[in-house]
Amino acid sequence: MTRVRVDLFSSLDGYTSSGGTDDNPMGEDWGPLTQAYVATRTMQERVFGDTTGAGTTGADDSYAAAFFEGVGAEIMGAGMFGLHSFGDDPDWKGWWGDRPPFGFPVYVLTHTAPRPSIPMLGGTTFHFRSGAVADVLAEATEVAGGLDVRVGGGIGTALAFLRAGLVDDLHVSVAPILLGRGHQVWDGLRGLELTHAVTTEVAESGTIHITFTR
Amino acid sequence: MTRVRVDLFSSLDGYTSSGGTDDNPMGEDWGPLTQAYVATRTMQERVFGDTTGAGTTGADDSYAAAFFEGVGAEIMGAGMFGLHSFGDDPDWKGWWGDRPPFGFPVYVLTHTAPRPSIPMLGGTTFHFRSGAVADVLAEATEVAGGLDVRVGGGIGTALAFLRAGLVDDLHVSVAPILLGRGHQVWDGLRGLELTHAVTTEVAESGTIHITFTR
Repeated sequence: MTRVRVDLFSSLDGYTSSGGTDDNPMGEDWGPLTQAYVATRTMQERVFGDTTGAGTTGADDSYAAAFFEGVGAEIMGAGMFGLHSFGDDPDWKGWWGDRPPFGFPVYVLTHTAPRPSIPMLGGTTFHFRSGAVADVLAEATEVAGGLDVRVGGGIGTALAFLRAGLVDDLHVSVAPILLGRGHQVWDGLRGLELTHAVTTEVAESGTIHITFTR
Repeated sequence: MTRVRVDLFSSLDGYTSSGGTDDNPMGEDWGPLTQAYVATRTMQERVFGDTTGAGTTGADDSYAAAFFEGVGAEIMGAGMFGLHSFGDDPDWKGWWGDRPPFGFPVYVLTHTAPRPSIPMLGGTTFHFRSGAVADVLAEATEVAGGLDVRVGGGIGTALAFLRAGLVDDLHVSVAPILLGRGHQVWDGLRGLELTHAVTTEVAESGTIHITFTR
């Protein structure tokens, strides 16, 4: 049965990057937040094409691998797709090149002018939707065909789904750093542990993996 | 050599209790924050006099026991001593009864009228100081005689010492709950990992123990 999943990155003080410039859209705090994730064997292979087995294993890699498994559709906000930066360009097709690393339908939430769907190489199709999140989720769930629906981000979109009680599995990767600025990862989620079981685990990198599962 | 130590409790979203009423000075969120700590064998023995060995062991208990070891003096804020609630009472001697569980000099930071020191049973003496925190720390360090100085709280006092770079050892016990309200535990500490080494560890209770050590 389809589950709705969210994966987030946080600092110890509960912040994720609030973004940066068009040249560096994730902002300068994103690197330290995701350092242990990028160092995993899974990411070394997927992003850098390193098939020699380089990269860390253990808990960090287990979560990184799980991120890519069993997803049949994704939902993301307009900002994550790039519409806040390049929305004026009718030919904008996201940050990911001609062959985005999804391989399934991706629903982009936008309140601006509707766009035609964009089929990409490798099985990804971008669809643009302006309806209620629950309706978009229903469509994504049907398309996912029993696989999971991942709410990709950004943080505002993820929190909207979390606060609406639409998320079954939340995984937060907490880097052992203090940012003191950014978007608050946990904003408005008081008592989530009452509806979801919590697990906490520390990887060799010092990263804390927290899951909330319904 | 004397080290300056701080122990704090936090939720996953970085909050500690902002306090409650005079009847329940720590507030209703304090119980869930400290539940795993209170359940330890160390606390069962110290607080409830249970010497049967009841209570949890493991990481939670190791940190609980360490809290009480090697301390030669404590510094606390006026609020923690109770002056914000009972400062009008010249006979107020804190929340801890005739035999407070310190057993060493305790320096209370206060900007209101100075009070004479209060010797208590069991080796605790309360001193009241209105000088700069660095000066109070120097006095406490001398009195500690090579043992550590603990900055006991509340959170505002702890953060003042942390932001001033006066703390050698910070331990934060993070309960696997989301409070969504309270005082921010990590406020103003961006980059503490650049001056202090960080460790993260998960106890069987799900509590995450984070240490920053210089």
